[in-house]
Amino acid sequence: MGYPRQFTSLVAQISKFPGVSRRGAERIALFLLNLPEKQADLLIKSIAAAREKIRRCENCFNLSSGDLCAICSDDARDPSTLCVVETAKDIAAIERSREYKGLYHVLLGKISPLAGIGPEELTIEHLIRRLKGGDIKEVIIATGTDVEGEATANYVARVVSEAGISVSRIAYGVPMGGPLEFVDEMTLGRAVKGRRRINSGD
Amino acid sequence: MGYPRQFTSLVAQISKFPGVSRRGAERIALFLLNLPEKQADLLIKSIAAAREKIRRCENCFNLSSGDLCAICSDDARDPSTLCVVETAKDIAAIERSREYKGLYHVLLGKISPLAGIGPEELTIEHLIRRLKGGDIKEVIIATGTDVEGEATANYVARVVSEAGISVSRIAYGVPMGGPLEFVDEMTLGRAVKGRRRINSGD
Repeated sequence: MGYPRQFTSLVAQISKFPGVSRRGAERIALFLLNLPEKQADLLIKSIAAAREKIRRCENCFNLSSGDLCAICSDDARDPSTLCVVETAKDIAAIERSREYKGLYHVLLGKISPLAGIGPEELTIEHLIRRLKGGDIKEVIIATGTDVEGEATANYVARVVSEAGISVSRIAYGVPMGGPLEFVDEMTLGRAVKGRRRINSGD
Repeated sequence: MGYPRQFTSLVAQISKFPGVSRRGAERIALFLLNLPEKQADLLIKSIAAAREKIRRCENCFNLSSGDLCAICSDDARDPSTLCVVETAKDIAAIERSREYKGLYHVLLGKISPLAGIGPEELTIEHLIRRLKGGDIKEVIIATGTDVEGEATANYVARVVSEAGISVSRIAYGVPMGGPLEFVDEMTLGRAVKGRRRINSGD
């Protein structure tokens, strides 16, 4: 009661969006109702266009508008280094850091026995084929730091080692730009274990 | 770099949704990409249908699919009591409590001098016309508890008093269902000031 049927239906669908509560869905639905005609048309067309045009890169499973994604088809990238991530969002995050010039491989998830996701549900089979291609000299693993991310990193590390290729993991430690007192103990422990010698004169 | 153009454009539009961060917009955009065809169609049609069918009730400015909203056209509601709220979302919240059987009036906002919103930007003119209609015997004000909500309550209370109609405000106090230690001091102060005598035997 209180809301028209069409509004309740819209709110129900928006509450399924990730990270959006029922209350947040009501706010977003009201926002969509009040959106100027032109912007509403653009939004609807953008959803349709993105769904129609965007697929997975055949090489690395990044989001792509062609057979190969913008990174795999860029000749300036170093094809001897491969960074393994869980999702395409992680690629965007690493690209923003501008520290990495190699290629990527998106696993499309992480190993999670509780959710019924084993290695065969991920793109590891395809990763092994890429490793056998011969171009790749180093693999950098950049999975998450939760239990599933750790398990996935361990599994991928073994697969890469077995292929006789050098494997490393990005450094996990204290984040930049804040006082140490706010850093949790897990992160601090990891930062101490991963300490690096300072060469005077550096 | 990293994302196809169509994806970046979709993310930019979703980041304008209220309460959605850039990172949240990326997650929602990925969710929309992976949505099964049928659900995506339904979502797009629901947005269009809601925008086409839903308007404001001519009487109380609640969301409505006809000239009058479901509440104003319900004969079982008590037309002598009027509850004044800021937005249609507040109606939905009060309806969920099942404690109120009267009608509503949506102000479509709150008085906010800093944002350039005075009483004339709200539906107060229309409220005064309703008060003059003669049916309404009591007005209950249920605006927010921020500074603007308080100012709006004071303004509406004066308008209603000047029309010679009884006016009250919903009780503000300690929320139900939790220990007192987590209640902030403003709320506790308000709860003490608004204390009610207990009749033994109640």
